Amino acid sequence: MATRITLLTDFGTRDGYVAAMRGTIAAIAPEAIVDDASHEIAPGDVRDAAFALSRYWKRYPNGTVHVVVVDPGVGGARRTLAVNADDRLLVGPDNGVLSQAIRSASYCRIVHVTRAEFLASDISSTFHGRDIFAPVAAQLARGVQLDLLGPTVSDPVMLELPMAVASQRHVRGEVVYVDRFGNLISNIPAELVQDDLEVKLEGHTVGVVRRTYSEAPSGDPLAIVNSDGVLEIAVRDGRADETLRVGRGARVELE
Amino acid sequence: MATRITLLTDFGTRDGYVAAMRGTIAAIAPEAIVDDASHEIAPGDVRDAAFALSRYWKRYPNGTVHVVVVDPGVGGARRTLAVNADDRLLVGPDNGVLSQAIRSASYCRIVHVTRAEFLASDISSTFHGRDIFAPVAAQLARGVQLDLLGPTVSDPVMLELPMAVASQRHVRGEVVYVDRFGNLISNIPAELVQDDLEVKLEGHTVGVVRRTYSEAPSGDPLAIVNSDGVLEIAVRDGRADETLRVGRGARVELE
Amino acid sequence: MATRITLLTDFGTRDGYVAAMRGTIAAIAPEAIVDDASHEIAPGDVRDAAFALSRYWKRYPNGTVHVVVVDPGVGGARRTLAVNADDRLLVGPDNGVLSQAIRSASYCRIVHVTRAEFLASDISSTFHGRDIFAPVAAQLARGVQLDLLGPTVSDPVMLELPMAVASQRHVRGEVVYVDRFGNLISNIPAELVQDDLEVKLEGHTVGVVRRTYSEAPSGDPLAIVNSDGVLEIAVRDGRADETLRVGRGARVELE
Repeated sequence: MATRITLLTDFGTRDGYVAAMRGTIAAIAPEAIVDDASHEIAPGDVRDAAFALSRYWKRYPNGTVHVVVVDPGVGGARRTLAVNADDRLLVGPDNGVLSQAIRSASYCRIVHVTRAEFLASDISSTFHGRDIFAPVAAQLARGVQLDLLGPTVSDPVMLELPMAVASQRHVRGEVVYVDRFGNLISNIPAELVQDDLEVKLEGHTVGVVRRTYSEAPSGDPLAIVNSDGVLEIAVRDGRADETLRVGRGARVELE
Repeated sequence: MATRITLLTDFGTRDGYVAAMRGTIAAIAPEAIVDDASHEIAPGDVRDAAFALSRYWKRYPNGTVHVVVVDPGVGGARRTLAVNADDRLLVGPDNGVLSQAIRSASYCRIVHVTRAEFLASDISSTFHGRDIFAPVAAQLARGVQLDLLGPTVSDPVMLELPMAVASQRHVRGEVVYVDRFGNLISNIPAELVQDDLEVKLEGHTVGVVRRTYSEAPSGDPLAIVNSDGVLEIAVRDGRADETLRVGRGARVELE
Repeated sequence: MATRITLLTDFGTRDGYVAAMRGTIAAIAPEAIVDDASHEIAPGDVRDAAFALSRYWKRYPNGTVHVVVVDPGVGGARRTLAVNADDRLLVGPDNGVLSQAIRSASYCRIVHVTRAEFLASDISSTFHGRDIFAPVAAQLARGVQLDLLGPTVSDPVMLELPMAVASQRHVRGEVVYVDRFGNLISNIPAELVQDDLEVKLEGHTVGVVRRTYSEAPSGDPLAIVNSDGVLEIAVRDGRADETLRVGRGARVELE
């Protein structure tokens, strides 16, 4: 069975940077299957990339290599990481972009990639996606062991994300992600959601938690436990971010 | 030979939803080859998705599984369909998104997917792409027979699309699709196009039907039988939708 | 080992045109692996497509088939080319889109594709991506020899691109490409860059050439030799095109 590699970047596709990564992988590991996760992360948005990765990395089978290149500090001092997390392999810069996946893994081993023989022979200072991350991913796909890439890391950069706070009959969280449909995704996990509590967004009542989008009239806001297992505020057949004029950081309460 | 699966959605890629579908497929049917048809359908635009699907579903070889997830009613009462149409397999919600392909097939067998053992064990109410459509597609790619998925359907939801009307020396249709280049694609099939007739758009003369874009001067509108086999109005080296300020529903006549 | 085909177009994906090309390839060469290079080239922008291709075509292993369909003259008199360049195969219209790759190859053999048996049986005048370029690529992937496709071409259309001009202590070039991050990519090769010279953009000083983006303060412009091996002007953590209000054609000097 060929190994699968996924790519998540903020490169867009029109410049040919992604294709340069794919070509590099094809030259080293021609049998690997390469999936585009996305190349449309907003330039430099480490946090959105971390959220996107958290939605799919564990869905893939063991042995998959997930590469993430959202790397505003390219060429600077930040380390290159390779990680075994629950038997999937993660490759990316040490800037927090892998931290959501690392946090949610039950098992994790992290190395700082330092061994030059697994990288391009001539490394540019502006395009580590092609010269470092793609070669490392291809080597891992060929079966190179993680421990050969460099020394163990015990202090990866972790994104500090806001946590929901719960008391007996009150939960307070915030919007941490806005998706393509304008849905407002909070940091309140399903475990803290009680059916008889009302949801408030920035102090305005949204109502009780629904089971499906279709329970609300078209154009109305609603709260729901979404496919990430967290509380989401949506507008039926519309965009909650535009209709309700809120975004990342907006206050969400259950009471 | 590995089975091929194509994905057509309105998810965009940046949120990681498509990658979650791909990972789900890879876990169930690791040998399947997954092609992105598009993830850039406008959110909820069932009609445009139906048109896009009609352009490619039959180009693929027999046995290909085409998945379409443009599903504004997710979580509601609409059925999940799996279809054998001319030996390609179609999977999607019963909201009309498959209806153009069904209409153009010479043979069709449709089932309502009800058998839980072929779906995710835990089905969210907001992301059936991951929890229903991807697993069903992967099972079909593994060789599961259509009839095992659920009971036969004889009344799928069909989009009611406007038809061109022809009398002896007059044809009347309308613009049914505007493509990325701003080309105005009508519902007038090549069979109704006569060389000596003049094309009119919203009452304004466009001229006789040309054989190539290059027959018109740069910047000028022209009519042509396009690669879908229907009459199209384009502007040479420009956008017809912007230059002529018309869109879906604009009147097209031949006389 | 399956042959790899890459696709570079200005089609976008939402209309299903790319999927029609993929389906056509899958029907002729089901074993071929198809990579999306990009479908987001600006409509008709032959020059940007030529630059994108130049970034990846040689990164892929020998035998790869690179298809480029940015073809504003579709249906007109321009020829279809198939090229062996350093043992990669290039397929596209004879409008200059392949010329940057041809120029940078150490070996090149070019044919005009004329043999109808390798094309679709019914060729539309508006979609040669599906009816000509995809079938030719698939035939090459199946092992059809280049010479069988048609007669040799010795005069392909070559883009005339501006060249940098150097005297002893002065180099003058211009911005030839603006990438997704707003970086201004010049036509001044690394060989002409001397460490003690100052970079000027439209007459304004940018400073000496840096080794990494991180050497400049956030928000400041900087000059660097980039991953293409040419001088680039960037803004740290920002967009140089917007901050400095320049684009393609802007004057870049070293002195």
